[in-house]
Amino acid sequence: MAASINRQILLKSRPEGPPSLDNFELTERPTPDPGDGEVLMRILYLSLDPYMRGRMSAAKSYATPAALGHPMVGGTVGEIIKSRHPKYSVGDIVLGYGGWQEYALSNGGGLRKLDPTAAPVSTALGVLGMPGMTAYVGLLEIGQPKPVETVVVAAASGAVGSVVGQIAKLKGCHAVGIAGGAEKCRFVANELGFDACVDHRAPDFAKQLATACPKGIDVYFENVGGAVQRTVWPLLNDFARIPVCGLIAQYNATTLMPGPDMFSVLRKRLLLRGFIVSDFAAKQADFLRDVGEWLRTGRLKYREDIVDGLEKAPASFLGLLQGKNFGKMLVRMAT
Amino acid sequence: MAASINRQILLKSRPEGPPSLDNFELTERPTPDPGDGEVLMRILYLSLDPYMRGRMSAAKSYATPAALGHPMVGGTVGEIIKSRHPKYSVGDIVLGYGGWQEYALSNGGGLRKLDPTAAPVSTALGVLGMPGMTAYVGLLEIGQPKPVETVVVAAASGAVGSVVGQIAKLKGCHAVGIAGGAEKCRFVANELGFDACVDHRAPDFAKQLATACPKGIDVYFENVGGAVQRTVWPLLNDFARIPVCGLIAQYNATTLMPGPDMFSVLRKRLLLRGFIVSDFAAKQADFLRDVGEWLRTGRLKYREDIVDGLEKAPASFLGLLQGKNFGKMLVRMAT
Repeated sequence: MAASINRQILLKSRPEGPPSLDNFELTERPTPDPGDGEVLMRILYLSLDPYMRGRMSAAKSYATPAALGHPMVGGTVGEIIKSRHPKYSVGDIVLGYGGWQEYALSNGGGLRKLDPTAAPVSTALGVLGMPGMTAYVGLLEIGQPKPVETVVVAAASGAVGSVVGQIAKLKGCHAVGIAGGAEKCRFVANELGFDACVDHRAPDFAKQLATACPKGIDVYFENVGGAVQRTVWPLLNDFARIPVCGLIAQYNATTLMPGPDMFSVLRKRLLLRGFIVSDFAAKQADFLRDVGEWLRTGRLKYREDIVDGLEKAPASFLGLLQGKNFGKMLVRMAT
Repeated sequence: MAASINRQILLKSRPEGPPSLDNFELTERPTPDPGDGEVLMRILYLSLDPYMRGRMSAAKSYATPAALGHPMVGGTVGEIIKSRHPKYSVGDIVLGYGGWQEYALSNGGGLRKLDPTAAPVSTALGVLGMPGMTAYVGLLEIGQPKPVETVVVAAASGAVGSVVGQIAKLKGCHAVGIAGGAEKCRFVANELGFDACVDHRAPDFAKQLATACPKGIDVYFENVGGAVQRTVWPLLNDFARIPVCGLIAQYNATTLMPGPDMFSVLRKRLLLRGFIVSDFAAKQADFLRDVGEWLRTGRLKYREDIVDGLEKAPASFLGLLQGKNFGKMLVRMAT
């Protein structure tokens, strides 16, 4: 049963620099009814992801900005509670793009049915979803790690980084994580099985990273940029590959930060390549097969950071941008 | 016959910032005799190339620096005038790495016999040599231009750039050159057949470049860096490829210049890849076959900028770094 009220979080204003709670507005609207060919989903989980910072801005990007006065965009797992669509029945659990609200309509475009007996449905937003696939295609298609090579990834306890390092290990690499704080580092090294994890807040971070990478760095999976990037750069080996997946440390910058010096790109014959997961849509079946298998056999682990209630989404998202989450960040609205 | 005196130009000191004539020293030494298994070459042509700036520095790079007090390193075409090597006879014309001197010994390592009836032997240092192959592999292996795409190259009248743009045309691309001065631009557009060539010294250079690239830029063959790079960057299309071959505008910088912003790498999913020609040694047969054929059939043109006499090498090299040459820079010592 749908409640008559649909709570939504709207994008109220666009941030200049770091976003704040003022950029969002909680509102209540009547829960809509599906028209012909539509379904109504009750959202169970909303995914919070760094890319959303980009959608808050009006700047040109690979995706259109979120619209002011509309619910913030975001991936969701929901349950079909009303259906006038031939492919979906009440009770189906679907992955979709319902946004920051408790109920969402869909015409079926972009929906994918989930099998709740195969894996917890929340994983469709994390390790078995966009973040996991981002890690999989970025590391394997662009990074192309070879056994014994050293793979470094920052935000190593997060949704993408945790998968990058674990796949690197499965491929026979030396996997080194970078994370914020001793607790995350312990988790990455002890629970996820990275060879080492270095705290970027440590005063001797650069020295610790060099010690953790005695043979230099062959693949640097870039998802933070900024100071971490500058520390990694001198350790890159000749012919290192740098999949550029995200730059979370720079998302709030109001002026463009200078990039890494081009001399090292030339002298070391580095490869840098920016990507977004949809560039590799053709790899989805491979991803689901491989990562699904690694999950079932316990060779790949994941951690979720779940808060309850839509009203928590803005603060949790701001925390995510500051690295306060510990694992894949999710908002649970119902179970 | 060998003269008894071998004039050499030694690397006397390493420059900080732009090199000067003081960094070089002309000296005279007795012409050596080949030992067992060696040949003596009389050098006909010495190649002057931007990469030599790197060899003057002690900084770590992909090649060892030139040694102080020794002849500057460089590619040469020479005639064997004495031989105690089973594979080489007096009169053979060979491509080698004889350096900045009039006579050079070799044990045969790295020598390649040339056929003077197939092409002028000087082309082995240019269009049919290292610069030509640099253009060929950088454009085709990394740039991977597709028909109708726009390819941009700076130093477009030079040894590498001229080949990049002409191959781009042969592959069905829209080829746009950047060069310094109206005379070079006319040559690039009218003689080499680029679709357009823009003068980077023009006050409205950025506007002219945008006009010459109405569909944006898909491949930017990077061999200059600096201000030209900054002008090109905003015009890059999504999924543009940037083979990073050289950064001549930055070679004299004493501090590292900031690189291009990483946001565009991410948002536009750019690919940047540094390379040197020897990384693609396996492509040499393809290169000689294709470019040889294009030269024979008149579909590829080249221009040489020849000065006579070893003593001209230092000033000509300094001029090359400032873009004063017009075509492949060569020092002729004998014919």
